[in-house]
Amino acid sequence: MHNHSIKQVTVVGTGVIGNGWIARFLAQGYDVIATDPAPGAEERVLASVERAWPALEKLGLAAGASKDRLRFEPDLAKAVADADLIQENAPEREELKRRLLAEIDLNAKPDAIIASSTSGLMPSTLQADCARSERIIVAHPFNPVYLIPLVELVGGKRTAPEVLAKAEQFYQSIRMKPLVISAEIEGHVADRLMEAIWREALHLVNDGIATTEEVDAAIIYGPGLRWSLMGPFLTLHLAGGEQGMRHMLEQFGPALKLPWTKLVAPELTEELSNQVIDGCERQTAGHSIAGLEERRDHFLIELQQLLEKYWPGANLNGKL
Amino acid sequence: MHNHSIKQVTVVGTGVIGNGWIARFLAQGYDVIATDPAPGAEERVLASVERAWPALEKLGLAAGASKDRLRFEPDLAKAVADADLIQENAPEREELKRRLLAEIDLNAKPDAIIASSTSGLMPSTLQADCARSERIIVAHPFNPVYLIPLVELVGGKRTAPEVLAKAEQFYQSIRMKPLVISAEIEGHVADRLMEAIWREALHLVNDGIATTEEVDAAIIYGPGLRWSLMGPFLTLHLAGGEQGMRHMLEQFGPALKLPWTKLVAPELTEELSNQVIDGCERQTAGHSIAGLEERRDHFLIELQQLLEKYWPGANLNGKL
Repeated sequence: MHNHSIKQVTVVGTGVIGNGWIARFLAQGYDVIATDPAPGAEERVLASVERAWPALEKLGLAAGASKDRLRFEPDLAKAVADADLIQENAPEREELKRRLLAEIDLNAKPDAIIASSTSGLMPSTLQADCARSERIIVAHPFNPVYLIPLVELVGGKRTAPEVLAKAEQFYQSIRMKPLVISAEIEGHVADRLMEAIWREALHLVNDGIATTEEVDAAIIYGPGLRWSLMGPFLTLHLAGGEQGMRHMLEQFGPALKLPWTKLVAPELTEELSNQVIDGCERQTAGHSIAGLEERRDHFLIELQQLLEKYWPGANLNGKL
Repeated sequence: MHNHSIKQVTVVGTGVIGNGWIARFLAQGYDVIATDPAPGAEERVLASVERAWPALEKLGLAAGASKDRLRFEPDLAKAVADADLIQENAPEREELKRRLLAEIDLNAKPDAIIASSTSGLMPSTLQADCARSERIIVAHPFNPVYLIPLVELVGGKRTAPEVLAKAEQFYQSIRMKPLVISAEIEGHVADRLMEAIWREALHLVNDGIATTEEVDAAIIYGPGLRWSLMGPFLTLHLAGGEQGMRHMLEQFGPALKLPWTKLVAPELTEELSNQVIDGCERQTAGHSIAGLEERRDHFLIELQQLLEKYWPGANLNGKL
């Protein structure tokens, strides 16, 4: 059924993220072993899978998928011994993760892939103490892991390209959208974008401009509606009329100098302008602006019909 | 049908934003007069309304709504003479807007509301040259204006509170979600948040970390999925488990010091922490975390079923 060779998966560390992975792997028909040294971890894992399961059933389970294919194994060495892929989700402390990954590396099969869910640490750092460092990668997911498809894949200096390629294929096969990132930076890509909006949101509250509720409303009823369809580049490309991004950079380039956020913008050089314009044109190759607008509009209508049931103030009694 | 007294609306300036307003007002059953000094403006207005109309029909027109209730009037004074609300959408140049608003003020009925769509200028500045400055407000919409419900309402130092209250009622009646913002700042609220993400996205491209397409993918398959349902605060509140935002601030507060974006974060004082935690608790009053998670999950499933038709790679032939 899958053309990669991954059959058994082990999840190390069972907080919100680890438990999200467990639910996704189970729903996709894998045998899953979970391990975590914390007291009561096994009960929390089981409860978490129970909570996620109705959503996963609604989305559609893979053939043979079952909650019963989960086993909790408190001993780390035993838990990873037979795994083809190990997903590590320990707390974000460098020392802890390095030590843990070295121990996983020591006890795992030689060709097992070891993936860390870290958001902030770089794979070159994480693989430093591992003997078989070529199979260490970052595979950074988003909450709730059993429903959000994005996973950022990053290799370190010593990661083998074929390991990344195999991991990409695996995460694709479990209904995810892997994004292979070629450069190692703290926060990868998505968390950097989220951190920018998060810091700006904190400034708005701190400066007394808006409450948390007003900030949230300014997102969900406005820009947030477009962001599941189009990222910041395509959004602006479509706001620019027939001239697209080229027009927007001419019109709003000067605003990059204004104090509209506390984030200093990069210099809008000709090179950067061209990168952005060419990128948007590549992304929309083969589609007219009018066609893209029509697609966006149909989506926005269907989305808002859907959101009527969920937005604040909707009658949630049937849902909760 | 409406309990405000606005019957005739005039739109001054017919670019992408002005034309979006025209389509929304017409679809909501208003008589609309459009005015713009640019050659060929009338033809572009008509073409733009034609393009938007099928989407608006799909969404549902108000009783009596008709494209024929639009009239183009090249003379500004005549165009605004009988309007109950005038929506101004001139280019974002302070001198131009101030002069234009003063002229509108001079020619409009004494009790007409004059609303500027400006994203960057403050209402106190815009009303400075107006005799009846108490009826000048900012009403800042989002593209496409005929579909996105958010409109930010901001009064200047001389704006009368009852004008803002009447405007809030009016925009609500045309199926919008008005957000009244109590402080005047450049970019209001939503554009500040968007500008932060936009600048960070430009840095990522400029630093060679990601292409425009990869940045967009990092949004649409990940955080963007949540942002039409939950803003940055509620999103983190739900990622924090039963302890919610309190736990997240303890866990990720230190990350505010890390160079995860080029935006410097505010100091996470006890006061700011409490504002954020209390805000999230107010937003979710009466709902359990488990209930909110269930609601989020149901939404994410339905959203992704919808997006299958629209995401890159989907077969768009039926749509375009």
